[in-house]
Amino acid sequence: MIHALPYRRMLILTEGLLGTFSSKTGTSMLRYRRQDIVGVLDSVSAGTDIQASCPGIRDVPIFADLAEAEPLRPDAVLIGVAPVGGELPPAMRRHLVEALRRGLSIVSGLHQPLGADPELADLARMHGGRIHDVRQPGPIDRVARGLARRTRARRVLTVGTDCAVGKMVTALELRRAAVAAGLDAAFVATGQTGIMIEGWGLAIDHVLADFVAGAVEQLVEQVADRQIMFVEGQGSIGHPGYSGVTLSLLHGCCPDAMVMVHHVGRQCHSRWEDCPLAPLPVQIELYERVLAPLHPGKVVAVAVNTVGMPEDQASAAVRAIAAETGLPAADPVRQGAEPLLEAVRRHLGI
Amino acid sequence: MIHALPYRRMLILTEGLLGTFSSKTGTSMLRYRRQDIVGVLDSVSAGTDIQASCPGIRDVPIFADLAEAEPLRPDAVLIGVAPVGGELPPAMRRHLVEALRRGLSIVSGLHQPLGADPELADLARMHGGRIHDVRQPGPIDRVARGLARRTRARRVLTVGTDCAVGKMVTALELRRAAVAAGLDAAFVATGQTGIMIEGWGLAIDHVLADFVAGAVEQLVEQVADRQIMFVEGQGSIGHPGYSGVTLSLLHGCCPDAMVMVHHVGRQCHSRWEDCPLAPLPVQIELYERVLAPLHPGKVVAVAVNTVGMPEDQASAAVRAIAAETGLPAADPVRQGAEPLLEAVRRHLGI
Repeated sequence: MIHALPYRRMLILTEGLLGTFSSKTGTSMLRYRRQDIVGVLDSVSAGTDIQASCPGIRDVPIFADLAEAEPLRPDAVLIGVAPVGGELPPAMRRHLVEALRRGLSIVSGLHQPLGADPELADLARMHGGRIHDVRQPGPIDRVARGLARRTRARRVLTVGTDCAVGKMVTALELRRAAVAAGLDAAFVATGQTGIMIEGWGLAIDHVLADFVAGAVEQLVEQVADRQIMFVEGQGSIGHPGYSGVTLSLLHGCCPDAMVMVHHVGRQCHSRWEDCPLAPLPVQIELYERVLAPLHPGKVVAVAVNTVGMPEDQASAAVRAIAAETGLPAADPVRQGAEPLLEAVRRHLGI
Repeated sequence: MIHALPYRRMLILTEGLLGTFSSKTGTSMLRYRRQDIVGVLDSVSAGTDIQASCPGIRDVPIFADLAEAEPLRPDAVLIGVAPVGGELPPAMRRHLVEALRRGLSIVSGLHQPLGADPELADLARMHGGRIHDVRQPGPIDRVARGLARRTRARRVLTVGTDCAVGKMVTALELRRAAVAAGLDAAFVATGQTGIMIEGWGLAIDHVLADFVAGAVEQLVEQVADRQIMFVEGQGSIGHPGYSGVTLSLLHGCCPDAMVMVHHVGRQCHSRWEDCPLAPLPVQIELYERVLAPLHPGKVVAVAVNTVGMPEDQASAAVRAIAAETGLPAADPVRQGAEPLLEAVRRHLGI
């Protein structure tokens, strides 16, 4: 269940997908584990400035292949994309083969277990590299009983109006702000990127459906005696593909407070064009109602993702959302998570 | 994905659990596939009258062991219980070993795959029996897109105030009533007992969480061109352990109409004593609200499970629930599913 990733000179593999929607794994690694990354591997973007693809990130070289990156002595290749369905994009295979031939290790958050791929497994054995499939949970077979309600630590969950809006980032920024404020705060990773960043956790979307909420209970118990925990949200209650995982997470951790995350301008569930998002106030009420039979948790603030917007438009968008919902709102990346944390603390009385 | 079970002389194994909560699988087989069953295997209840344990079921012999049942020439042993967690109750193993030694096959709906048990697998190979793990779905890797909304067939889902209230039975009785009324009606099995009864389907609680709703879409597509389908519900929206599966099923099949199933007198989620049930009207509204962002399905009737109650009390309970919810209500086993079907047809205009 707990994955340890000891690498300090990683290459982020995005092959042809750098800067696209799918490369959020790589972008988050660059943001939260920059010190352990030596470059990006992407023959399509090679030689360009990383800022062109990933605004706000600087001075990371982009290489076309392993040979080019060799002088930086990389120790692992981390697959920096999260495609729908979770299979290895075919264009990435040659880089993995080359990396394993050179004795490097592979870190993957795909559903498809790379350790079960005969060619890759053989190469790892021959050359001494390891294959880390961080989405493989190991044996998980507990049915949730609502036990999360008993933790000493107060529980805060980030929830979203859609997938890929910034729930992990919001939880990480909240934890950062809480630690800075002197709280004994933990981050609970529930997805592959969160695990890669934090070094432990569980990819709950890869658990058998009956045991997802139980797995969340087990995660929460790891930090039960801390003061406060920020649990990384998954999916969205209105998304036809992922809503079950979202609800299992909600009932598995029974949050005292929720922070809603919304990406300004998102009209439909991402790439599900025929599934429009319900309005923010409707979604907020829905999360609270569906939790209510078990626990009286409330949405206490809105984290607004304004990435790519000019400063004045971003501020206006945040103000508009605060007015629409009647809740404190802020973009935790642009403005810091302090206003969101303050709303959480006020609600919890800590 | 489609399981075929050709057995016509099955023994239902309940070893020590006949008549308990856990033996609902066996009881349903006795109710809906009686013609293919020669007896029950349970050394604790052996020799007693089946009516004492399973009211309404008659003339099924209960045997202490395989040797006793031999004269009836059984062809398979079906595990007739659904324990929490889905592991094989230890007391059952000796019966399975004995059955396989005699060349019989095993039908199991447990999470634990019996085909992967070395002793049992060896015995099956040696003596020619087969092991059917009907909960093992095979490769399932589709993320739902809300495509169920496009079927020609109208979609009806049974939903519940709790687990084990009668959602499968209600769907089966609705299908029976619909066929009797001349409709081209299908039953969609989503759990192990439903699959055993119907001969095809998928145990959706044993699918990786991200793919549950997608698996439901695939099931629904099997009968997309029929006139109406009755989809077997799973779990309950307020149950901390199973709510994720429930929501995936709801969003995966996007029902036009729902029939709520409630067991009279159930106060808490079964064996989850610290999780009280929300009132019926609250639950009805919750199912509709959580579906609404995707599809405008409504709860149109309540199936009331009054098993074990005297006739007058049962009638009073059904009337009380109709008054509380403002919806047509009936016990589909005691009174027939016709009043429920009528409500469905009125809502759908068919």
